[in-house]
Amino acid sequence: MRQRNKPWADEFLKENDHLILNNPSRYKGRWKQDVFQNTLPIHVEIGVGKGQFITEMAKQNPEVNFVGIELAKSVIVTAAEKVLDAGVENVFLMRENAEDILDIFGEEEIEALYLNFSDPWPKNRHEKRRLTFCTFLDKYRHILEADGKIMMKTDNPSLFEYSLVSFSKTGMVLEEVEMNLHQTPHAEHVMTEYEERFTRQGKAIFFCKVHI
Amino acid sequence: MRQRNKPWADEFLKENDHLILNNPSRYKGRWKQDVFQNTLPIHVEIGVGKGQFITEMAKQNPEVNFVGIELAKSVIVTAAEKVLDAGVENVFLMRENAEDILDIFGEEEIEALYLNFSDPWPKNRHEKRRLTFCTFLDKYRHILEADGKIMMKTDNPSLFEYSLVSFSKTGMVLEEVEMNLHQTPHAEHVMTEYEERFTRQGKAIFFCKVHI
Repeated sequence: MRQRNKPWADEFLKENDHLILNNPSRYKGRWKQDVFQNTLPIHVEIGVGKGQFITEMAKQNPEVNFVGIELAKSVIVTAAEKVLDAGVENVFLMRENAEDILDIFGEEEIEALYLNFSDPWPKNRHEKRRLTFCTFLDKYRHILEADGKIMMKTDNPSLFEYSLVSFSKTGMVLEEVEMNLHQTPHAEHVMTEYEERFTRQGKAIFFCKVHI
Repeated sequence: MRQRNKPWADEFLKENDHLILNNPSRYKGRWKQDVFQNTLPIHVEIGVGKGQFITEMAKQNPEVNFVGIELAKSVIVTAAEKVLDAGVENVFLMRENAEDILDIFGEEEIEALYLNFSDPWPKNRHEKRRLTFCTFLDKYRHILEADGKIMMKTDNPSLFEYSLVSFSKTGMVLEEVEMNLHQTPHAEHVMTEYEERFTRQGKAIFFCKVHI
């Protein structure tokens, strides 16, 4: 269950502003130099949730800089705790809205983007809120480098169908499509908390990798 | 079961060469004028099988000219019988290999192409035989008009995943993707024989509509 009330969350956020960055727009175009202080590629996860994916990815890929975005205060603190517990230094988090991503990253500043189990917003009138709606894809394309990739995972078939069409209509190219990702073992696919639960329940996980 | 031996098939083909056309390459670029003698759009099904789909489509769409291609002699005669029984006049069939489609149709001569339950050719070394391999897609694009569409249905998840990527990499655009076509009723989707059986068995049918 999501922990909805964490009275200590504000305190925690304040104390950990070296990890959960405030006003990240001040780093726009300067993430490598100013934040990571290296020249390694930057991978961004939108919707970090409780942080299992980004923490494990950071552990397994020390040659990559990770940035995680999550709006919900109640889960970003859990994600931050995981990052701290793991002692990984190649991750920064921020409590921001994905809509504002153009304020946060400069043109072609990142190499890859992960969308894991995003809210499906099933009602047609909420289409614009889906993280694969065309206006979002245009923003991702702006901040991704020319050879950049988007990796998406979901358990929601309608969101997956919608997203494949949306990627394609925006002129992006599907490089991989899997309609039951864990049918065969994929050691390279780090699982999110949701994904582990769904996979145990025998639910299919949909995956695609898209070239912008 | 497929009827593999039909001793009367050769005789039947000969007698019905007004429906199952011989040497269709003689009509290349002239299908509307010489064969259909009208100016209606042409829709082609590759792999007609026993003909239920094309017969029913022809019945429901009298304003469309249909051409069905099928290599297997044992099934094309069944398809022809269905067309004759239905008394539809807007269908022609031919016993040809899809590989030779550029010999049969001229540039932009057709409006839509149907690929229904094509052989998945699951082995990697047989990739080139799949009807959605890039060389086939290039041929389809040549004979389809600029606004032409490809409609694909299959029960094979691997072929579907493969095909989505193949369409996308060839620069085609996915306009619709359905991972369980008959989950909600689609009156407009005429079913093939296979499709009816699979749907009764509760198997998912995958569908996509692609703009070339």
